[in-house]
Amino acid sequence: MGKVLSYGMVGGGPDAFIGDAHRRSIALDGRAKIVAGAFSRKREKSMQMAEMLNIDPERCYDSYVQMAEAEGKRKDGIDFAVVVTPNHSHYEICKAFLNAGIHVACDKPVTISYQQAKELEELARQKGLLFMVTYTYMGNVTAKYARDIVASGDIGEIRAVMAEYPQGWLASEDDCGGKQGEWRCDPSQSGGVNCLGDLGTHVENAVAAMTGLKIKKVLARMDTVVPGRILDDNDMVMVEYENGATGMYWTSQFAIGHDNSLRVRIYGSKGTLQWFQETQEKITVISEDGTIREIHRGYAAVSEAAARYGRLPSGHPEGWFEAMGNLYRSFAECIIAKENGTFTADMIDYPTIEEGVEGLAFVEACLESSRNGNIWVDVK
Amino acid sequence: MGKVLSYGMVGGGPDAFIGDAHRRSIALDGRAKIVAGAFSRKREKSMQMAEMLNIDPERCYDSYVQMAEAEGKRKDGIDFAVVVTPNHSHYEICKAFLNAGIHVACDKPVTISYQQAKELEELARQKGLLFMVTYTYMGNVTAKYARDIVASGDIGEIRAVMAEYPQGWLASEDDCGGKQGEWRCDPSQSGGVNCLGDLGTHVENAVAAMTGLKIKKVLARMDTVVPGRILDDNDMVMVEYENGATGMYWTSQFAIGHDNSLRVRIYGSKGTLQWFQETQEKITVISEDGTIREIHRGYAAVSEAAARYGRLPSGHPEGWFEAMGNLYRSFAECIIAKENGTFTADMIDYPTIEEGVEGLAFVEACLESSRNGNIWVDVK
Amino acid sequence: MGKVLSYGMVGGGPDAFIGDAHRRSIALDGRAKIVAGAFSRKREKSMQMAEMLNIDPERCYDSYVQMAEAEGKRKDGIDFAVVVTPNHSHYEICKAFLNAGIHVACDKPVTISYQQAKELEELARQKGLLFMVTYTYMGNVTAKYARDIVASGDIGEIRAVMAEYPQGWLASEDDCGGKQGEWRCDPSQSGGVNCLGDLGTHVENAVAAMTGLKIKKVLARMDTVVPGRILDDNDMVMVEYENGATGMYWTSQFAIGHDNSLRVRIYGSKGTLQWFQETQEKITVISEDGTIREIHRGYAAVSEAAARYGRLPSGHPEGWFEAMGNLYRSFAECIIAKENGTFTADMIDYPTIEEGVEGLAFVEACLESSRNGNIWVDVK
Amino acid sequence: MGKVLSYGMVGGGPDAFIGDAHRRSIALDGRAKIVAGAFSRKREKSMQMAEMLNIDPERCYDSYVQMAEAEGKRKDGIDFAVVVTPNHSHYEICKAFLNAGIHVACDKPVTISYQQAKELEELARQKGLLFMVTYTYMGNVTAKYARDIVASGDIGEIRAVMAEYPQGWLASEDDCGGKQGEWRCDPSQSGGVNCLGDLGTHVENAVAAMTGLKIKKVLARMDTVVPGRILDDNDMVMVEYENGATGMYWTSQFAIGHDNSLRVRIYGSKGTLQWFQETQEKITVISEDGTIREIHRGYAAVSEAAARYGRLPSGHPEGWFEAMGNLYRSFAECIIAKENGTFTADMIDYPTIEEGVEGLAFVEACLESSRNGNIWVDVK
Repeated sequence: MGKVLSYGMVGGGPDAFIGDAHRRSIALDGRAKIVAGAFSRKREKSMQMAEMLNIDPERCYDSYVQMAEAEGKRKDGIDFAVVVTPNHSHYEICKAFLNAGIHVACDKPVTISYQQAKELEELARQKGLLFMVTYTYMGNVTAKYARDIVASGDIGEIRAVMAEYPQGWLASEDDCGGKQGEWRCDPSQSGGVNCLGDLGTHVENAVAAMTGLKIKKVLARMDTVVPGRILDDNDMVMVEYENGATGMYWTSQFAIGHDNSLRVRIYGSKGTLQWFQETQEKITVISEDGTIREIHRGYAAVSEAAARYGRLPSGHPEGWFEAMGNLYRSFAECIIAKENGTFTADMIDYPTIEEGVEGLAFVEACLESSRNGNIWVDVK
Repeated sequence: MGKVLSYGMVGGGPDAFIGDAHRRSIALDGRAKIVAGAFSRKREKSMQMAEMLNIDPERCYDSYVQMAEAEGKRKDGIDFAVVVTPNHSHYEICKAFLNAGIHVACDKPVTISYQQAKELEELARQKGLLFMVTYTYMGNVTAKYARDIVASGDIGEIRAVMAEYPQGWLASEDDCGGKQGEWRCDPSQSGGVNCLGDLGTHVENAVAAMTGLKIKKVLARMDTVVPGRILDDNDMVMVEYENGATGMYWTSQFAIGHDNSLRVRIYGSKGTLQWFQETQEKITVISEDGTIREIHRGYAAVSEAAARYGRLPSGHPEGWFEAMGNLYRSFAECIIAKENGTFTADMIDYPTIEEGVEGLAFVEACLESSRNGNIWVDVK
Repeated sequence: MGKVLSYGMVGGGPDAFIGDAHRRSIALDGRAKIVAGAFSRKREKSMQMAEMLNIDPERCYDSYVQMAEAEGKRKDGIDFAVVVTPNHSHYEICKAFLNAGIHVACDKPVTISYQQAKELEELARQKGLLFMVTYTYMGNVTAKYARDIVASGDIGEIRAVMAEYPQGWLASEDDCGGKQGEWRCDPSQSGGVNCLGDLGTHVENAVAAMTGLKIKKVLARMDTVVPGRILDDNDMVMVEYENGATGMYWTSQFAIGHDNSLRVRIYGSKGTLQWFQETQEKITVISEDGTIREIHRGYAAVSEAAARYGRLPSGHPEGWFEAMGNLYRSFAECIIAKENGTFTADMIDYPTIEEGVEGLAFVEACLESSRNGNIWVDVK
Repeated sequence: MGKVLSYGMVGGGPDAFIGDAHRRSIALDGRAKIVAGAFSRKREKSMQMAEMLNIDPERCYDSYVQMAEAEGKRKDGIDFAVVVTPNHSHYEICKAFLNAGIHVACDKPVTISYQQAKELEELARQKGLLFMVTYTYMGNVTAKYARDIVASGDIGEIRAVMAEYPQGWLASEDDCGGKQGEWRCDPSQSGGVNCLGDLGTHVENAVAAMTGLKIKKVLARMDTVVPGRILDDNDMVMVEYENGATGMYWTSQFAIGHDNSLRVRIYGSKGTLQWFQETQEKITVISEDGTIREIHRGYAAVSEAAARYGRLPSGHPEGWFEAMGNLYRSFAECIIAKENGTFTADMIDYPTIEEGVEGLAFVEACLESSRNGNIWVDVK
């Protein structure tokens, strides 16, 4: 295992879901431990979290500004910062840590504008720092295997993609309350986009990561359906890729009966691949002759590059924490390699700021399409 | 049971799949028997079929023209004609039988143009004749139950529909041969449309039948993907209904791994309904509180109006023949009522020429949208 | 197609489920038509049925005795008799038709004792008549394919079988009423056995037909669980086959949530095969290396001997009527071959009286085991 | 969260699967950290593990004897010991820690004889120490919910249980090699039992935990099937519970296609409950009227006592580590309560040594039954 890295977190206070989830995912492998944080804008809450995590009170900061500055100067400063605040604040926070010379892992969407994301990409490059965007689901072993199946040519050239990410938790008119629902329904915190930013970027990234296809243009219709909503809660997108293939993406937050149903179906000239997040322990591959094969994480068929991320034998379910943990596993390996001087770009097996930029380019093109009567818009 | 009706068939020669399928479906209930036919344009083949079916040779006709004329004049002439020829010939054939005063059941799409379909609708009305368009799948007990669930308000107001009908049987470049593949890939026989006419009309009809929603406008992209194809084999359609709800429809003929995957998912303000043709013995209904219920044909929960079409207890699978047979069951009941003078319009529980017209209106709007750069086009 | 056979039915009156189901199944192919019957012990009901079926009133008989005698003497007498009365009456009825020189198709269990079944087997042999026992489920295309997979050696030598047939329709204390429930719960009509006779014989036959294994001995526990029941409604059986492999069979009538769940799982040294009646359009085959393959009726992988029974392409669901119809298809082919003098024993592809005898041997061994404290009992 | 406990591990060296899995599960919540260990009988390997885990070398012991003695005496000694060695060594190791006054968590089966287990139970009682047996699967939220559904009376009185735990990983004649396979096939390390000890005890415990039913007697057939095996690899057990209900349990290690298929189906007078480990994020509950409901972890329907163990919203898969982590969560809560003087027995929500004893009683009764010709044997 070698060195245990140290990290700090911005956001992730006592009531926050996603910060807690990141911490548990990192803990799974024991390769990094939390030693600093600015968990909440309320000092009391931040201190409460620090205590729960056995963090030295002097490394519990009042703001990310202080934290970036102080940790950047410490000899034993954090190896990386984890940013899990609402979307609109990502940009400034990430910038602060990059400027302090600290690697960054940031929740998606990485910013609320393409311009911001490009700046962060440029800054990270200048500083020679690693920047991970935590598109959780690409950490799944079977998602990585999907990528390898496509790359191997087993399903031939891709002809069409059907991808969707419906959820049902905001179906009721009363659902905009609560810490979770609130900022997602508030334009000022989310860059003018809700469902497409939250779910659509996952769809875009999953398809891009699995297929390697670049989107040429999109035609989007973003609707605000549930009474009382201000932002989009149902989005339909037609996609044309650079190779001429097409896709349809759907995201929704009022689709009752769907918990977290990111689903990708890839249709090639020689076969089909189906990957569903909620049953991500398996993947379905169908050959030209109609043979439907179900392959489980842990099976010999799984590519070595994907299989190495498994922690348990097949039939012993892994899940969300493991997927997120796998992102951090590669991120930690790369940081250590950076520190050892052995890093090369092909070691990266996590979503980078480049993918974060692509996400924002997708979102902005969809917004433009939707605002202009659902016309085709080129993606930057 | 009462009277056994007699019918004749145009098309459905020795090698034809769909004619055979109609005959078996009708036989299931024994309410009508075949006594006449013009099964093929080749006399020899037609006679061969007549012999196989124990039909009086003098009622085996050389053409539908002769058949319509002769049967229209016989005292014991057929009660209805079944038209199962390629799409482009439906119009003339149906017209001939209507003009001869004979009820008609015709395969879908009912014609290859909206104009033709409207004419048939008008002619049937003038003549006071029944006209069924055999959208098979709406014959399924669970499809009828879906309609009743929506009508009951159980899932609230409909907000979004996701429907698709992918098949994989024409995925290979070599698949345009064969009696089945040939005419579907030939513009002259299919009205300039292939996949959307064959599969898209089923999607359109299924959604309309289940939801009762009228389509206001469509935005379609119809692609010709497999090398060598002349007509569309992959179609993406955005739909806006008159109530403001939206839908996405997808049809494909190269989606390897899909046999015959008509799937309708209806998202309402109070619940969700999922109906998949390939597993049509059950239907999934999800309530606002997340409860996922699976209801099987034959269960007490199924509405009486739908349940009455079941022939077997739950767990004893019914399928395609039963669905088609159910259309003919209602059609036969209506014909007998017509003959008895007891017919009223609310007895009709099969897809009519009006639904055939709607199918063509949908197809033509999609063609117009697709040819004009995927713009919104109002549906007639 | 050639000659259309004629048949008569004993049982299957206006309210009877199984007689109606046999008639529809036969109608599906049009190879035989019903021309005679003794549908009910009540003349009025029998005549009502005859009228519904357009049967010549003189061929509607007051008793099977009259019917066998009269039809046996007619020049245009029935080619075969279908016996669908309660189990306890099968023996006398079948005997009467065999003695009249008429082929017989009888519902299962074929009799209520091994001795009776052996007598019928012997009588059929002496008379040179065909005798089908309608174990419906072995008519399924995928069930026939399962048999061919095992025979091909693809899953190696069989090591274990897990088979079950739970139903839930008699779970309530009040369920013994109704025409269906009544005789199943009445010892005098069922040979002292209920659930094991009704469901267990299907399990025994399905496993025997698919695997070709002969049962050496059984250890059974037959319980009467629901208050008010007189006969067994839950049966657990351990089985040892002649090759040394073992099996477990379970049948139940109070297993709420199961409609008609005949399920067979066969574990071999080189692979596994899973066949479930309720989803019989597909079969699952798993190879030694863990590859799980789902094969649908209609796929190229299906053996020719099984595939020839399909009537529709994959994805167009076939079901119970088709399975039953397939039994009658082979039965009719064999009868015609008998009449043509071209019959050979290897043409038989339906369950015979020999399999009926095996069913009774299984039941009687289980009864003996259960009555003697659940000891191992050799099967005759 | 309060105090972070410290623990030590016996077994769990560099190549060991289960020790690693326990450590990750414990890490998930951060309530206990590993500070001591005797990871391997080979000093070098043990030190290697200690280094990987950042453990003080002086707390890396050469044997469990030393470890128990030293840790028992330290002021900052471990709060509990985790025993993850092969089955035959559990007894002596657990005894040593109990005698040193240290709480114990031991893998299942807790010992290789009933007598040993009873001694440990007695010793723990005398010492006033907590003893957890890590039947992993009862840590699943849905398994706990299953227990609460049965207890609530929702499915009525239990009439039958069907439970199984097939695996396929030892299907080949060559599979006894490898660190995992080896000791499971070696009588001297496993108490004369293999498959039934490894898998059957999980089945026994799962059914007991969910239903609360006590087994009165068993009738078992334990077979050694794969050539080269010395111990049982396929076991069939009939069970009679004290309330008169019956059950069938099946375990196998050569069932190709099964990864880790612990499945429990509970049939009551008013409903049915199905819980499958491999899809443990949901549970299926069927009511008397046939309504099939699928309930997901995270849904409002889940009982509070079970729901509190969830860490993620529904649709974000939890799995094996979370289940095991939940056992340790309750264990840690109880230890802290013990230390605070606030412990009461009803706080225990993990499997105890009492359940370990029941597991051995079950195994020994099965062995006796199997060795004596598959007769009924009372369970102690």
